[in-house]
Order: sequence, then structure tokens, then C-alpha cells
Amino acid sequence: MKRVVLLRHGESVWNKENRFTGWTDVDLSETGVKEAIEGGKTLKNNGFIFDKAYTSYLKRAVKTLNQVLDIMDLDWIPVAKSWRLNEKHYGMLQGLNKTETAAKYGEDQVKIWRRSYDIAPAPLEAGDSRNPRTDVRYNSLTDKEIPLTESLLDTVNRAVPYWENVIVPEIKQNNYNQIIIAAHGNSLRAIIKFLKNISDEEIVSLNLPTAVPYVFEFDDNMKPVKDYFLGDPEEIKRKMDAVANQGKK
Amino acid sequence: MKRVVLLRHGESVWNKENRFTGWTDVDLSETGVKEAIEGGKTLKNNGFIFDKAYTSYLKRAVKTLNQVLDIMDLDWIPVAKSWRLNEKHYGMLQGLNKTETAAKYGEDQVKIWRRSYDIAPAPLEAGDSRNPRTDVRYNSLTDKEIPLTESLLDTVNRAVPYWENVIVPEIKQNNYNQIIIAAHGNSLRAIIKFLKNISDEEIVSLNLPTAVPYVFEFDDNMKPVKDYFLGDPEEIKRKMDAVANQGKK
Repeated sequence: MKRVVLLRHGESVWNKENRFTGWTDVDLSETGVKEAIEGGKTLKNNGFIFDKAYTSYLKRAVKTLNQVLDIMDLDWIPVAKSWRLNEKHYGMLQGLNKTETAAKYGEDQVKIWRRSYDIAPAPLEAGDSRNPRTDVRYNSLTDKEIPLTESLLDTVNRAVPYWENVIVPEIKQNNYNQIIIAAHGNSLRAIIKFLKNISDEEIVSLNLPTAVPYVFEFDDNMKPVKDYFLGDPEEIKRKMDAVANQGKK
Repeated sequence: MKRVVLLRHGESVWNKENRFTGWTDVDLSETGVKEAIEGGKTLKNNGFIFDKAYTSYLKRAVKTLNQVLDIMDLDWIPVAKSWRLNEKHYGMLQGLNKTETAAKYGEDQVKIWRRSYDIAPAPLEAGDSRNPRTDVRYNSLTDKEIPLTESLLDTVNRAVPYWENVIVPEIKQNNYNQIIIAAHGNSLRAIIKFLKNISDEEIVSLNLPTAVPYVFEFDDNMKPVKDYFLGDPEEIKRKMDAVANQGKK
């Protein structure tokens, strides 16, 4: 039996300020660091020992992972980082406050932008300083791969290939038993949608709690057989509700 | 011109207690974390942007690197970890206090153990709980590769091949301009000995200061042309003297 843990990063400074983040590389808040440490303790107490870790190019995910691995005494394991595990790109909304955006455009429009499956927010203009093309870390991406905005569908289309073409083959080749993916609300939604075959309509209302380990168990052919969160069910529900309410006025 | 930065980890809890550490996986002290942050600031202020980072399997080096990369806003770069960059294995001395050992065996014997080129401390017995064979992170090593003690010569013989067969080929293949190696007093001595063709006698008295960036410049064929420390010369000398005096009563 193989296990894959999905872990959404802890609270970031912009989560706290309720601003659209996307590919903006904002840091963890103090609360976020504490959440990461708690997530790591939960994994350690449940006996996890990871063979490898995967994360995004964004520091809120990398640093959540670093905290988790340190608490677990696993600082030494290999870590792979990929832009394909980045958060959904939020286009022109990146940097705007969610409550202000809701007051201006209406809660329904914000909900469409945040939660529709295939409608993306208005794209950045090419000359915008927020264009990922201006950032050295994305130098190796083709123009087609560089997003100026994304729908969840777009995120699925670049995150799921990383699962299928990189993570799963590595698990099989190296006979890994346990791995962890520390990433973001929407890149993890993409993988969960694929693993559980969730419909386009349903996936948008799945609200992953921050830094709560979400375990998938697989048979030896990497067919998912079971999934569950680790931790106190009431605390998990409170965290899910907090995420769901972020777009409200 | 290509640049390679060698960085010795910041002070560890056992450096502070003046105990032989070797492959024991002790954490950074608070001072060590601060030193790492200072080292990162120095690199940032000197305009370094690394393409890749290399470190050991030991958390004092991994966490020094994590601090440096975070201060430099480079959390996203690829990091490779290898046991070949670990500190010299100190055999039976691991865990003993250096001052007590000096009082018991004499300063000269301690200096031989710490600083002779090809004489290793007494080896661990195979059944010793400190045998790296008992640690999951070394599962992939052959019996011949697992040390029960090491001289500096032994460390050279496993660290230099990592430089020659892994790091240099990666720099060439990927056309990296700047990389960092965050490691340990003796694994870095090994690489410096090789790069500067330092004699067996001289290398043992080279005392690397903790968390001070040591820059090597190379031509396009990876021939070293220049090397220098970054930072305040008086502070660097103070740190070198502190390391040199650790084995005294």
C-alpha cells in the first residue's frame, strides 16, 4: 500500500489580508508557520516517513514543506519543485482585496472568478509587472506555458500532467511508499479532481483546509482506494468554513 | 565566468557545547540561525542569484541553506542533497566533549584526531547505535561506503568525486553561472584541497569560518582562477580563530 499526502500551505500574509494571491510570491504569516508545524506534528505522530517531497515554486508552499520536514526530522529527503504545482494564476485580480472586489463587482462575480471551473479572471496585459515572464524562475517556460490568467480548468491542464508524468513514474521507479505534495488550494484541487473523478461543478466547492494532511492510499498499481484527513474533525471543519467564507463581504 | 560559493553551516548546538559531531544530526543553535541569515544577506547584497544549491544529509547544513535561500528570495531553486557532502565521520569520538577529550588524552592526541590528514579516530563498533547503517537515510549506501570512522583523506575520497562527477557536469550541462554548496568544515576542506591543490600538511590547518561565503571564480572550462571570502575581514579572522581554538583545554 502506498500513501500520498496532499498538504495545502499554511496561512500567508495575503490570506490574512484577504487579497488574491495566485502566482504572487508572498510569505507565510506567523499563523501559517504555526499551522505548518502542527501539520508536521500530526504526520509525525501518525508515523509517516516520506521518501520524497514535491512542492511549487512559491515560498508559502516551500516553507510550509521545510517546516513539516524539519519537525519530522526529514530535512534530508529529496525535494522537487515545479511551477506546475503553483496556485491558479488570478490574472488582473492578483493583489486586490477580496472583500473590496466583492463590494465593487458583487459577490456573484467574485464567486465566478474564484470558483467557476472554466472562466478565468481578466488576463494581465503582457507589459504588466506581474507577468511571470519578467521573473527569472520562469525562464525555462515556453510562451504557451506562461499564464496571464487561469481558470481552474487551465490549472488542471498543467498540474495533472505533473502528477501523471513525473510523480507517479517516480513513485513506481523508485518504489516509494510515502510521498508528500505541499502546494496550493487549486493545484491540489486539480489533482484531487483527477484522483476522485470529481465533476467540474463539484470540484469548485471543495475547500481544502490549510496545512491539514490529506492522505490518499493507493494499491500497488497506483489506483486510489481510500482518502481521509488527519486531525481533529471539528478543527478541520472550522478551517474549511473559513476558506469558503473568504469571498464574502 | 562562473562562481561557486562554499558555505560552512552556522554554529550547531554541539559546536556550542564543544562536542565532536561528525555524522550526528544536530540542529543549528540560535546563533547558527542568525549566522546563516547574515551569510544570506551578504550574498544578496553582493548580487548573487544561484541556479542550483547542493547540501549534505545533515540538518545543520540543510537549514543553513534554507535560511540563506529564503533571505535571498530563492526558496524556489533546485536543491540536491548528498551524504557525500556530510561532515567527516568522527568514529568513537562522536558525542564526546572536545575539552574533556583533550584533558583525558592530551591536546596533541586530540589535534591528531581532529587535524591529521590520514589518521582516523577509533572506529565505532558495528553494533553501536551511532552506526550510520541503523539510519534509514543511508539505506542506499553500500557497506563499503558506510563509514564507522573517517580521516580527512577518507572524506576527500568520497566528497571530491561528488564535485567531479555530479556538480561540475551539472554546471556544464545546464550552463549554470552561480551555484552554492552548503556543507561542513571537512567536506568543504576536501573540495578546497582539490581546487587549490593544497598539500596534506597544509589543508589540516585551514579553518573555515562558519556561514561566511567563500567564493571561487572559474573560467568557462571550470578551471579555478580566483577565490575570496565575502564580508568584514576582521570578523572573518575572529571566526577562524574561534574554530581553531575549539580543541584546546
